[in-house]
Amino acid sequence: MQTKTLYWQDNTLFILDQTLLPLALNYIEASDVDTVVDAIKRLCVRGAPAIGVAAAYAVVLSAIKADPQANKSLKSSVIRDIEKLWQSRPTAVNLHWALSQQKDIVESFNGSPAQLVDSLLARALSIHEQDIQINQSIGDLGASLLKPESVVITHCNAGALATAGYGTALGVIRSAFKKNKISRVYAGETRPLLQGARLTAWELEQSQIPVTLITDSMAGYLMQTKKVSAVIVGADRIAANGDTANKIGTYTLAVLARAHNVPFYVAAPTSTFDLQAQSAKDIPIEERHDDEVRQFQGVVSTPEGMTVWNPAFDITPANLISAIICEKGIINCPNMANIKAGIEGK
Amino acid sequence: MQTKTLYWQDNTLFILDQTLLPLALNYIEASDVDTVVDAIKRLCVRGAPAIGVAAAYAVVLSAIKADPQANKSLKSSVIRDIEKLWQSRPTAVNLHWALSQQKDIVESFNGSPAQLVDSLLARALSIHEQDIQINQSIGDLGASLLKPESVVITHCNAGALATAGYGTALGVIRSAFKKNKISRVYAGETRPLLQGARLTAWELEQSQIPVTLITDSMAGYLMQTKKVSAVIVGADRIAANGDTANKIGTYTLAVLARAHNVPFYVAAPTSTFDLQAQSAKDIPIEERHDDEVRQFQGVVSTPEGMTVWNPAFDITPANLISAIICEKGIINCPNMANIKAGIEGK
Repeated sequence: MQTKTLYWQDNTLFILDQTLLPLALNYIEASDVDTVVDAIKRLCVRGAPAIGVAAAYAVVLSAIKADPQANKSLKSSVIRDIEKLWQSRPTAVNLHWALSQQKDIVESFNGSPAQLVDSLLARALSIHEQDIQINQSIGDLGASLLKPESVVITHCNAGALATAGYGTALGVIRSAFKKNKISRVYAGETRPLLQGARLTAWELEQSQIPVTLITDSMAGYLMQTKKVSAVIVGADRIAANGDTANKIGTYTLAVLARAHNVPFYVAAPTSTFDLQAQSAKDIPIEERHDDEVRQFQGVVSTPEGMTVWNPAFDITPANLISAIICEKGIINCPNMANIKAGIEGK
Repeated sequence: MQTKTLYWQDNTLFILDQTLLPLALNYIEASDVDTVVDAIKRLCVRGAPAIGVAAAYAVVLSAIKADPQANKSLKSSVIRDIEKLWQSRPTAVNLHWALSQQKDIVESFNGSPAQLVDSLLARALSIHEQDIQINQSIGDLGASLLKPESVVITHCNAGALATAGYGTALGVIRSAFKKNKISRVYAGETRPLLQGARLTAWELEQSQIPVTLITDSMAGYLMQTKKVSAVIVGADRIAANGDTANKIGTYTLAVLARAHNVPFYVAAPTSTFDLQAQSAKDIPIEERHDDEVRQFQGVVSTPEGMTVWNPAFDITPANLISAIICEKGIINCPNMANIKAGIEGK
């Protein structure tokens, strides 16, 4: 059975601590919002869809923790927690998508505190369950784009661990593998935090999908010397025009793919689209702590205090994207018009 | 004073152990060939020109160690050691260039063992001294290509540590900085062995040249969002047609540079040219141990036994190179004809 990214049990959110993978498999037991906020900030739970699901559950924890006697301030207390969760990470938009749904429930609610908890939990469970189904749809649709014997490059982790399960980019790879279309996956290790080496390589190996780990700098030489069929990545936010924020390094892969005539696919649920963002310029890019680049897991590799640039994401312009695969269908050569039609399922 | 990459003293070759930088500054005392071979293989001394200099001195050690009574076998003993050194690393051609000179001396020699030692040492000292002068010439020539306020990206370490001193790519940067032409250098950390983070960032900081460390995957986003004036790298072997082997990741930078209209410069002494190699296909690319990719400075980051691809170098085709800077001059848009003319100083 696949390791669960997160699950709800006995009024507690259990979050797999992905910072420890693949060396240890530990769950964080979160019974309050601050623990979830901390887990999101420290990337114990990461991946745009998974962050959305975790945040939805965190709002349930907020309602449970609120003083049931203080009915009048219950709503404002939960709204404050939603605000806190909203600010936990800036780029992935699924977080805001999930929190908006919970916020709507809170704002329009008129029942007892216990009923509010029930309503919020029902929505969180539904977001959770839907995400798995959505990933399977993305996987099956995306697999249709690949030919037998495909050699695929992926970056970071857009797998079961980045979602409620199955994965977006890795969902496509899983579905394609079941149809005997994958001969090998090359996983970029994804510095600075090595989600490719720690999570994707581990996930694919667990699923017995042939995987070779490379450093990020090898992707160019790989495309130059071996036959690469496609690059498939996930996304953290997709603007109305198709510009796509994803893990730093994605844009480099897109430029390389174009230079080598390799199709470049983005796999993401419709909840990753932000139609309020017209283009790249409207997507905030998180910059994280310098020490992530200065070291790996506490082992220092550069002089103390070295000046560092550490954007966690980059933007791939729509014109470098061959297609976006969402649960509603495949959006070829994405642009404002076909994205709008595509996510409305037209 | 600049830290010496290597030096000769009391019949001993002192080699700065670059695997320990920047955390420790230790010299390996080599008094036999095997110690030098081991230092080359483990990358204690690395960088094509520095390897050449180290190997030239190692041949002196071989002649010193040979039994002075066994005059007849002296030559064959030294030739055997030259063979051993020749095989120590496959891609950087300066190693073979330096060893060929020492081999010629041995093969044509007719004097006493002590005289052979003197001749070999004189040549090693000359190769060593020349390399520093050559780097300064490369630096001054290359600096002429840059405008004031230049923002430069470099990869791996083509600095004083990769040479007898001053550096090739970093030599250009040093000379340009002296002329107030450098506003900032972005150093790619250069996974898997982090020569950028450990050596280049350290070297530039020691020289008070403004440097920002990035992971290799950030170069694309850097070129997309900031004004980058040039990419400058070193080389391990340059074929007759200009195809250039350099540290893995160089080709990716060259593709990115072309896509962003950023000039891409290679700085290398004429000893890095291999006119026997017609093109990329004649340059052997070293593949190193999987653990270099599986770990980050000894910290394991992926499941045990993970399949890995670990080419230590890649090939940048001549058509992506704006110019090669060697001590004889600047070879713009390198090709077979202008390279031949250029390295003959015509």
